Amino acid sequence: MIGTQTAHEAENLPGHLMRSEIDETPDALARILANRDAIVEVAEQIKSADPRFVLLAARGTSDHAALYAKYLIEVLWQKPCGLVSPSTTTLYEARPDMSDVLLLSVSQSGGSPDLSEVTKVAAEQGALTVAVTNTPDSPMNRAAKLGIDIHAGPELAVAATKSYTAQLLSLYLLIDAIRGGDGSDAVRIPELARFTLDSTATEVAEAVQRYRFVGRMVTTGRGYSWATAAEGALKLAETSYLTARTYSGADLLHGPVAAVDDQTAVLAVCSAGRGGQAMPEVVNRVRDRGGDVLAVGSATSDVSAHLRIGTPECAEELSPILEILPVQRLALGLSLVRGGDPDNPRGLSKVTKTR
Amino acid sequence: MIGTQTAHEAENLPGHLMRSEIDETPDALARILANRDAIVEVAEQIKSADPRFVLLAARGTSDHAALYAKYLIEVLWQKPCGLVSPSTTTLYEARPDMSDVLLLSVSQSGGSPDLSEVTKVAAEQGALTVAVTNTPDSPMNRAAKLGIDIHAGPELAVAATKSYTAQLLSLYLLIDAIRGGDGSDAVRIPELARFTLDSTATEVAEAVQRYRFVGRMVTTGRGYSWATAAEGALKLAETSYLTARTYSGADLLHGPVAAVDDQTAVLAVCSAGRGGQAMPEVVNRVRDRGGDVLAVGSATSDVSAHLRIGTPECAEELSPILEILPVQRLALGLSLVRGGDPDNPRGLSKVTKTR
Repeated sequence: MIGTQTAHEAENLPGHLMRSEIDETPDALARILANRDAIVEVAEQIKSADPRFVLLAARGTSDHAALYAKYLIEVLWQKPCGLVSPSTTTLYEARPDMSDVLLLSVSQSGGSPDLSEVTKVAAEQGALTVAVTNTPDSPMNRAAKLGIDIHAGPELAVAATKSYTAQLLSLYLLIDAIRGGDGSDAVRIPELARFTLDSTATEVAEAVQRYRFVGRMVTTGRGYSWATAAEGALKLAETSYLTARTYSGADLLHGPVAAVDDQTAVLAVCSAGRGGQAMPEVVNRVRDRGGDVLAVGSATSDVSAHLRIGTPECAEELSPILEILPVQRLALGLSLVRGGDPDNPRGLSKVTKTR
Repeated sequence: MIGTQTAHEAENLPGHLMRSEIDETPDALARILANRDAIVEVAEQIKSADPRFVLLAARGTSDHAALYAKYLIEVLWQKPCGLVSPSTTTLYEARPDMSDVLLLSVSQSGGSPDLSEVTKVAAEQGALTVAVTNTPDSPMNRAAKLGIDIHAGPELAVAATKSYTAQLLSLYLLIDAIRGGDGSDAVRIPELARFTLDSTATEVAEAVQRYRFVGRMVTTGRGYSWATAAEGALKLAETSYLTARTYSGADLLHGPVAAVDDQTAVLAVCSAGRGGQAMPEVVNRVRDRGGDVLAVGSATSDVSAHLRIGTPECAEELSPILEILPVQRLALGLSLVRGGDPDNPRGLSKVTKTR
C-alpha cells in the first residue's frame, strides 16, 4: 500500500542507495565547509612550495572533477595545467623530472593501484603530491605527501554521486585558498544544493518520461560546465546503458554535430557566465540538425530548448556543483524506468583495479 | 556500364575525395621523411630552449594527434605534458606564466581562431610556440615562433584522413629527433602503410557488411593506440552518424563497460607492445557483456575477437600510423553502405570557427 512502505522495504527498492546518496549531497557539502581549515593548511603548504606546473591524476567520475579543477587552476590560479595519462607511468615506465610540479591525485576510494603508482612515482621524481580522497587512510594517501579529505561519508552505490560534488567543492576551496580567497562565494552552496534538489524534481520527472525510449544522447557544455556534461554522459552510460557521448561545445561544432539527428537527445549545460554565453550558438546548430534539446543550468532561458531544468545562479566557478544534481537524478530515473537497477549495474564494480 | 566509368563519373561518386585522400597517405608519409631535415632543425631549436613542460593545443582530429604526441613526449622525451583547454584562454582570458613551456599547436588548416589565439597568448606569456600544420602560411603559423609543415598536400574531403597520419609521423619525427634519434624506425612506414591499405581491403569489406546495421560502437585501446581508438570513434561519428564513443581500455573497465551489450560493436585496437598487452583483459570483459569485438592492429591474434583486421608489426610508437588506415576505410565504407556521402556530411564544414 502506498504510504505504508516500511524502511526495510524501501531499502530493497532498486536505486535506493543512489537516491539516498544524492540526497545526502547538501550535508556532505556543509561538512566540507565546516572543515575548510584543513584545506587552507594544504593550500599554505602548496603556496610555499610555489609549483610552476600542475598535473591531475584521476579516472572515471573523478576524472571529471579533475577536468573541473583544471579550469580552476588555469583561470583562478593562472598556472599551466594538464591531465595525466596514468599508463605512461604504469605501462611505459616514464620517469620525467617532476620538480616544480604539483600533482593532485583525485579518487573517491584512493584504492586504484595505477593512480597510487602514479602518485608514488611523481613524488620520487620531485613533485609535491596531494591525494584528494574520501578515504584518508587509502593507499593513495600513503603515497602522497599531503591529503585532503572530501568528507562525503561512506558511498555504497556503484555510481558515484555525492563524492563527485564533494570533490568539486573541495577542489574549489583548495584553489580559492591558494589564490587568497576566503571561500565566501561557497558559503551558500549547501543551501543552494538543497534548493536545487527540491526545485527540479518535477522537471527531472518530465525529462525521465520524455527520454524513456531515447536511443542516444549527446551532452555538451563549455568552460567549467564541460565537466558537468562529461560527468552527465558517464552517469547516463553507467546506470541507464544509454549511448551517451560528450563533446565540449566547441568540439561538437568541429564535426560530431553531423551525428546529431531527430533521434538524438542533446543535454546542453547552460549556466550564467562566460562558458554559458558560448552555448546558444551550439544549441542552435544542434536544433538545426533536428536534435531534441534538454537544457540544464542557471541560464537555460538563453537557449532554445525543448525542456529546461533550471538551477539557481551562483558564482560561475561553483555552478557545476549544482548543475550535476538534476542530471544525477535523471540518470537514476531513466535507469529505473528502463527496468534497471543503478545500485547493481551489470558488469561494474566499485573499485576497479587497472594497471 | 561497369568498367567503362569515366574519370569524371568517378569524381562524382559519393566518398571519392575521402577514398583518394586515404590512398594518398603513403605518398604523404614519404614526403615527410624526405623533408625530415626541416623537422630536425625545429628539434634543435627546441633542445636549445630546453623547456621543462610541454602543452599541446588542438581540436577535433588534430586533438587525437596531440594525444598521441603526449605519449611520445612523456615516454620518449620524459617531459611532463598536458593538453590545453583553449577556452581558458579565449573565454576566461587566463594568462599564466608560460616561461619554460613548449606549446605545440596542431591543426590541419591552421585556421581555427581559438587555437591561433591560444598560440599568440602563449608566446606573449613566454612559451616557445610551434605550429604543426598542413598550411605553412596560416594564421596559426604567423602566431607561432616555429613551424612544421606536415606535407599532406591539399585535403579537400571534410573528414580528415591523410592529414591525421601526416601529423602523427611529423610529431613522431620531431620528438624522436629531440631525444637524439635518427628517424630510422620510421623509414619503412610509407611502404608499410601501402601494404596495410592493400592487405586489409577484404577484412574491411567484411566489417562493413557486419556493422551495416549496428546502432552503437565503442572504441578502445591503451597507450599509444588510445589515439587510434579516439580518432576511430570520431571518424565513425562524423561520416557514418554512428553513435561511437571511445574509452581508454582502463577507463572502460571503470564503469562504461556496463553500457556494452549484444547490440554493441567494440572496436579494440590491439598492437604489439605494452599498450596492446593490456588489451586481452579489456576484450574479455567486453565479450562477457555480449559485445561484438572487431580487433584492429598488429596483435589481434592475442585477443578473442569476432573479426580481425591485422596490420604489420612496427615500433610500437609508430603503430598508430598504420592502425588508423583500415579504420578510416571502415568509416568510409559504412558511410556509403548506409546511404551517406562522407564528402558531404550533414552539418559539417572544413574549418570551424569557434572561439
